Amino acid sequence: MFLNPSLRTRTSLEAACALLGVHPIVLQPGLDAWGWEFRDGVVMDGASPEHARDAIPVLASYVDLLAVRAFAGLVDADQDRADPVLKAFASLSTVPVTNLESARWHPLQGLADAATWVSRLGDPRGKRIVLTWAPHVKPLPQAVPGQVLTEAALLGMEVVVQHPVGFDLDPEVVERARGLAEASGGSVDVVHERDLRGAHVVYAKSWAGWSGYGRREAESAVRAASSSWRLDEVPEGAGFMHCLPVRRNVVVADAVLDGPRSWVPEQAALRLWTAMAVLEAQLGGNGWPNG
Amino acid sequence: MFLNPSLRTRTSLEAACALLGVHPIVLQPGLDAWGWEFRDGVVMDGASPEHARDAIPVLASYVDLLAVRAFAGLVDADQDRADPVLKAFASLSTVPVTNLESARWHPLQGLADAATWVSRLGDPRGKRIVLTWAPHVKPLPQAVPGQVLTEAALLGMEVVVQHPVGFDLDPEVVERARGLAEASGGSVDVVHERDLRGAHVVYAKSWAGWSGYGRREAESAVRAASSSWRLDEVPEGAGFMHCLPVRRNVVVADAVLDGPRSWVPEQAALRLWTAMAVLEAQLGGNGWPNG
Amino acid sequence: MFLNPSLRTRTSLEAACALLGVHPIVLQPGLDAWGWEFRDGVVMDGASPEHARDAIPVLASYVDLLAVRAFAGLVDADQDRADPVLKAFASLSTVPVTNLESARWHPLQGLADAATWVSRLGDPRGKRIVLTWAPHVKPLPQAVPGQVLTEAALLGMEVVVQHPVGFDLDPEVVERARGLAEASGGSVDVVHERDLRGAHVVYAKSWAGWSGYGRREAESAVRAASSSWRLDEVPEGAGFMHCLPVRRNVVVADAVLDGPRSWVPEQAALRLWTAMAVLEAQLGGNGWPNG
Repeated sequence: MFLNPSLRTRTSLEAACALLGVHPIVLQPGLDAWGWEFRDGVVMDGASPEHARDAIPVLASYVDLLAVRAFAGLVDADQDRADPVLKAFASLSTVPVTNLESARWHPLQGLADAATWVSRLGDPRGKRIVLTWAPHVKPLPQAVPGQVLTEAALLGMEVVVQHPVGFDLDPEVVERARGLAEASGGSVDVVHERDLRGAHVVYAKSWAGWSGYGRREAESAVRAASSSWRLDEVPEGAGFMHCLPVRRNVVVADAVLDGPRSWVPEQAALRLWTAMAVLEAQLGGNGWPNG
Repeated sequence: MFLNPSLRTRTSLEAACALLGVHPIVLQPGLDAWGWEFRDGVVMDGASPEHARDAIPVLASYVDLLAVRAFAGLVDADQDRADPVLKAFASLSTVPVTNLESARWHPLQGLADAATWVSRLGDPRGKRIVLTWAPHVKPLPQAVPGQVLTEAALLGMEVVVQHPVGFDLDPEVVERARGLAEASGGSVDVVHERDLRGAHVVYAKSWAGWSGYGRREAESAVRAASSSWRLDEVPEGAGFMHCLPVRRNVVVADAVLDGPRSWVPEQAALRLWTAMAVLEAQLGGNGWPNG
Repeated sequence: MFLNPSLRTRTSLEAACALLGVHPIVLQPGLDAWGWEFRDGVVMDGASPEHARDAIPVLASYVDLLAVRAFAGLVDADQDRADPVLKAFASLSTVPVTNLESARWHPLQGLADAATWVSRLGDPRGKRIVLTWAPHVKPLPQAVPGQVLTEAALLGMEVVVQHPVGFDLDPEVVERARGLAEASGGSVDVVHERDLRGAHVVYAKSWAGWSGYGRREAESAVRAASSSWRLDEVPEGAGFMHCLPVRRNVVVADAVLDGPRSWVPEQAALRLWTAMAVLEAQLGGNGWPNG
């Protein structure tokens, strides 16, 4: 179920299905299926002819796994924090649900990122990762940076989040990451200038700030942000990461993406293998051969 | 071939294919393929670059089965009655054709409905089914109510169609159902008020009236119809059915859909098994293992 | 990867995959995936959020074969001649690339056309094929006529290209075809009037002229061209071919398409078998069972 577009997530998951003998059914509600209503108790006299309460249990009766992508709306911070679409699937489905990027999290990307760290750094504990904000043409959700921060903290990395004033991450996510870092021997720092010295990993990503949330406000803020935050080089000894798609020469210079310090091709290629691992894990208890 | 959107029909059919080792190819002409012309003899200097006379035989030469969805246009009653798209496929294809809901009929839904009756009522003969009109935000085709009426009559049920004045079903379909009921020991009555007493099944559905056909006229009529026809409760001893998607609290109240008398989840789930039965039946003569 | 719509190419290729045990993944960038940027070195602050340099290698890491359709833009003749999208795939992919119709060529159609000649004519050498321009409602690319001309010349046929003044094919393609004909014992003639006498094959197709290239200029030229070029009959002893989709009674009369001299159904049906041959050839060196 793709309520938003996808290239890597969809293709890697379809390829993973093919390799494991799973038959994927791709739906795009509003494009090739009906648009859906997610709010409870409403009189459905608007644009959406179908309610998630009816659609999700039915789909769950046809398949062994439901997977859903539904980005943050970037209009109401509390609503995005509540992750309503993913939660609806989780509560209404009778089969396992895979998150293909929700308003808050992008765990399939997170798994591929962690696999890249292990592949390149061996044990990630104590390694320094700089998660740096970057300019963009429009405000973007915090699902990827929140996921990166959380996983790096969980794995005991020394995480430094760098962004201009006004582009703070969801304080609840940061607080949770600090707790995870404390337990894992890692650390979480947030600063408002860029300093890549000593970094083992430089992870660039644009996102809309949590204060001044709301698409229109975020739009102005992003436009106003100095393009000095564009990433033009990465220091020796550091690997460069980005989840893609990336706007070249807006977020990061061609020289970085095409240079020898870019881990992006491996990071993207690992999406296939981590997707296979997730399918195995989720379908394993369901009579799966290797389960 | 989906000329209109689909959720249950497409997903249940794709899942049925996967379970039977059939490879489904999903096309949406006008969206990811060319739009089609269906009229014979025209000079094709308009929007459609491809004629059904050319496309259908070609597709039939690539696959073992063609399945098509093409709703009623709700503009011209005679044209919808003629079911032109389905008829074009039936006459031009050299392989079996499955109707995924045409201007007049929705047999895959009908099979799942009949399976639900058998599952819940045992022998449906003599059981009372009320097919009741319901309000909606726009005029809808008669494919589902015509199918329900026809199948219930065929199976010897006591069918009562209830709708406001002006929302009559296609008289040809009603007449045919009366004939079927006569042969099966059932009955068909049409009344203009709602009375659910004694019903074993309450099947709610909105549709545009046959008199005053035409989208604009139907639009006004639907808006004018009193919302007193919304279904707010179902009597004890009766099961509630709807084909989905359903506009909650416009067509039927949440309390009915989510209540203990709703057969809707089983009715929808049976779409998978009846789709498998249809695939078996249609591909059986074609070297199919169990054919 | 369909950057343009498709019916036969997509369906025949999906069916070929199913018959050979290959799992097809269908993407339509800009529709269900992100739109792509193909120019190098640009600041990506426009509509496309993803660069082909990033997307193509990633996709190549997930699959065994990439197949792409990207029509001519009909704006800049030099750009179309350079075939930029196909070239980007060819240079950036680490797996084989199949051309599903590019700005310049349509080899899968060409293979089916050649198979039709062999099926109907036996040895095509010395047989006369007339490739005749036909009217249309809008300017069309030269990929199909260029492919037909090239393949017929390569196979030693006597090729006569017939089109109104101003509708010349790319002179580079014509020159190359003359060279191929010289080597194969065939011939290539270009004339500006229609004369079907002695033809074994009449292949009708509309295309925009190479001189006066550019969509707007081509548009006017096509409209101005006399509809006397519509194909209303085919002489005895000749077979009629068209790649489809065809605008009936604009390009060619119903009587020809539906008449006994039409080879179009066989020509279209052969798309399946030639697609299977291409998959075998391209995946054969990759551990393919029959490779």
